[in-house]
Amino acid sequence: MLSISHRGQQMPSSPIRKLVPFAEAAKKKGIKVYHLNIGQPDIETPKQIMDAVRHADFKVLEYSHSAGHESYRRKLVEYYKKTGIQIDHTQIIVTTGGSEAILFGFMSCLDAGDEVIIPEPFYANYNGFAVAADIIVKPITSVIETGFALPPIEEFEKVITPKTKAIVICNPNNPTGYLYSRQEMETLKQIIIKHNLYLFADEAYREFCYEGEHISAMHLKGVDEHVVLMDTISKRYSACGGRIGALVTKNRKVLDTVLKFAQARLSPPSFAQILGEAAVDLPDDYFDGTKLEYLKRRDTLVKRLNAMPGVFCPNPGGAFYAIARLPIDDADRFCQWLLESFSYNQQTVMLAPATGFYGTKGLGSNEVRFAYVLNTDSLNKAMDCLEKALGQYQTQVMNAGVGVLDDKLV
Amino acid sequence: MLSISHRGQQMPSSPIRKLVPFAEAAKKKGIKVYHLNIGQPDIETPKQIMDAVRHADFKVLEYSHSAGHESYRRKLVEYYKKTGIQIDHTQIIVTTGGSEAILFGFMSCLDAGDEVIIPEPFYANYNGFAVAADIIVKPITSVIETGFALPPIEEFEKVITPKTKAIVICNPNNPTGYLYSRQEMETLKQIIIKHNLYLFADEAYREFCYEGEHISAMHLKGVDEHVVLMDTISKRYSACGGRIGALVTKNRKVLDTVLKFAQARLSPPSFAQILGEAAVDLPDDYFDGTKLEYLKRRDTLVKRLNAMPGVFCPNPGGAFYAIARLPIDDADRFCQWLLESFSYNQQTVMLAPATGFYGTKGLGSNEVRFAYVLNTDSLNKAMDCLEKALGQYQTQVMNAGVGVLDDKLV
Repeated sequence: MLSISHRGQQMPSSPIRKLVPFAEAAKKKGIKVYHLNIGQPDIETPKQIMDAVRHADFKVLEYSHSAGHESYRRKLVEYYKKTGIQIDHTQIIVTTGGSEAILFGFMSCLDAGDEVIIPEPFYANYNGFAVAADIIVKPITSVIETGFALPPIEEFEKVITPKTKAIVICNPNNPTGYLYSRQEMETLKQIIIKHNLYLFADEAYREFCYEGEHISAMHLKGVDEHVVLMDTISKRYSACGGRIGALVTKNRKVLDTVLKFAQARLSPPSFAQILGEAAVDLPDDYFDGTKLEYLKRRDTLVKRLNAMPGVFCPNPGGAFYAIARLPIDDADRFCQWLLESFSYNQQTVMLAPATGFYGTKGLGSNEVRFAYVLNTDSLNKAMDCLEKALGQYQTQVMNAGVGVLDDKLV
Repeated sequence: MLSISHRGQQMPSSPIRKLVPFAEAAKKKGIKVYHLNIGQPDIETPKQIMDAVRHADFKVLEYSHSAGHESYRRKLVEYYKKTGIQIDHTQIIVTTGGSEAILFGFMSCLDAGDEVIIPEPFYANYNGFAVAADIIVKPITSVIETGFALPPIEEFEKVITPKTKAIVICNPNNPTGYLYSRQEMETLKQIIIKHNLYLFADEAYREFCYEGEHISAMHLKGVDEHVVLMDTISKRYSACGGRIGALVTKNRKVLDTVLKFAQARLSPPSFAQILGEAAVDLPDDYFDGTKLEYLKRRDTLVKRLNAMPGVFCPNPGGAFYAIARLPIDDADRFCQWLLESFSYNQQTVMLAPATGFYGTKGLGSNEVRFAYVLNTDSLNKAMDCLEKALGQYQTQVMNAGVGVLDDKLV
């Protein structure tokens, strides 16, 4: 029968990209849109690593090894050593972005109906990979009042069942920017040992920590079999389009299984492996400049937000995201309204409603995520817009009833 | 619980790559190995398209649209037009290799437990994607005596159940090189209409037809909703490492669903999209030279094989593969023996046992697949090795009993 699969129907649309048509319409009207909605860094990809691709000397663009070029994996060992992670090149499988590392990890360790616990709000695409792998996400809630700290251990215990196979963390966190403390990482270690769970650690933003040190899941002692690192060079080197990530673990059975999935798709992209290999040789101070820039932006953003009436934004310790609570009724409606019905000096701002990052329905309806991927000047202009917008939205929409807008939202 | 998933356990190892350690060991002993085992073309990637990547002028290696760069999709429309396929750019989703097009097609159209019919022998990685998508492959057998023609319509009807959702064909075929006739394509059309099935058409080797014209599934009239093309630039332009393919269909619901899977993994690789876009502007005679070269190789290979006692190789109409029946007891054992225990003038040959391409256990045990991806000089040398090897294998192994070898194969 000619039908769409149930999983295809369940597959969520990207909560971030669903506002794109409204942004496009705004631009057609001549309105400048400040994009704070998506984690596409504006930082230039380092010229040295682009040059490595430009000057690569080969005649045939061949498949690489299914686990990635051996030379790249050996180079990655050096990179990880600098971050305090001791592995060898056979413990790395190069993937097509961090995305594929997540999918392969889910597929290799969990069967249909198995469960992963993820502190919410979380990276929305985990939902997509969970649907693809036919597994169930059990969210436990981090709250804005604590700055989205790890929920207490009891919250994990409440949702653990015989079907629970893993915990997923993203550290520093997308979408909250929260950086897990050593204490919190040790708590996670206790849980995964006690309940014999995998710890899937998404550390895409490892380099971007502004308050304290990054504690990798791979730094935890005595849980080598449990920890599966899902990594990517996308944000680290502003190389999102390269689609190169890695799955790293000391668990040999997991590696052997992931390799079979990797073999089925033959190999990860070759060009960006060359780029990734060159990136390991960037000067050690490369991240200093990038970090300083993000730090300035974070400080600007958080200060501006907390100065607005009724707005609360905890100070994120890492990544380049922040979630703020706004004096609004419905974040999805507000973000659409910003694009569809608002402008200030022919400008507006595009944000990501936080609802898309929660697994629990109803949460996040007065929260939005900011990706501070614009320079401070643009950020300030975006904040000017937001400040005006909040006032106008409260007067014109929230106090005016919602009938008219409802029609548009159908 | 810390365990490997059942699907991870079921995931097949690559039947082609499992012999790699034996090839590596042979090379360490100083033996030259002729690789006829894998579809990695030796044809140079056209300089013009490599230059497009080298000279690409951008500052940030950004995510592309999840469906691929719009400029690339618009360019692909021109490419498809030249092959007699009329589509627009919204009917194309650029994928990470043909591999991802297959996976997205399976995931979007079939649920766990649903069935696809595939004429065997077939591309072994369909098994891997079937395990990943938790669907069931129902093989129907093509036989070497007919050159691996499409099995009769009754064979399809025999295995169709209410769970059957699709037929997969690869045309021209990997691993057999068979090129489906217009008549056979019309037969497939009748079946998919009668039973309301999808036709997934893998046309990776479209350009490589030596006997007659390529009839694309997209050329069939009146089945626009049924046909899903799974395409790739890998073989077409010797660009396997780029990892760029495409899923093409006029079925809007399938497109919408596939796009959701595409959004979850963000975007296909950027560099090779640039390469693929430039490839559409290669001169129209680009394929003539490549085809002529493959044709010479095919003729050399087939002639040499059929001249060997007890060997039969049908003349393949397309792609760059051929399957031959050899006077051997066990293709897996023979291919391993070639690497482990045989050499002629310090040379040997690496082949793919055909067993890995059959879904029905026991079939293909006296067949091997040749990928003619070496020039005629190397092919001739490889055939010299094979000829000697067959004599020696029959005398030393088949007639001598199998006890000793069995030990090694454990």
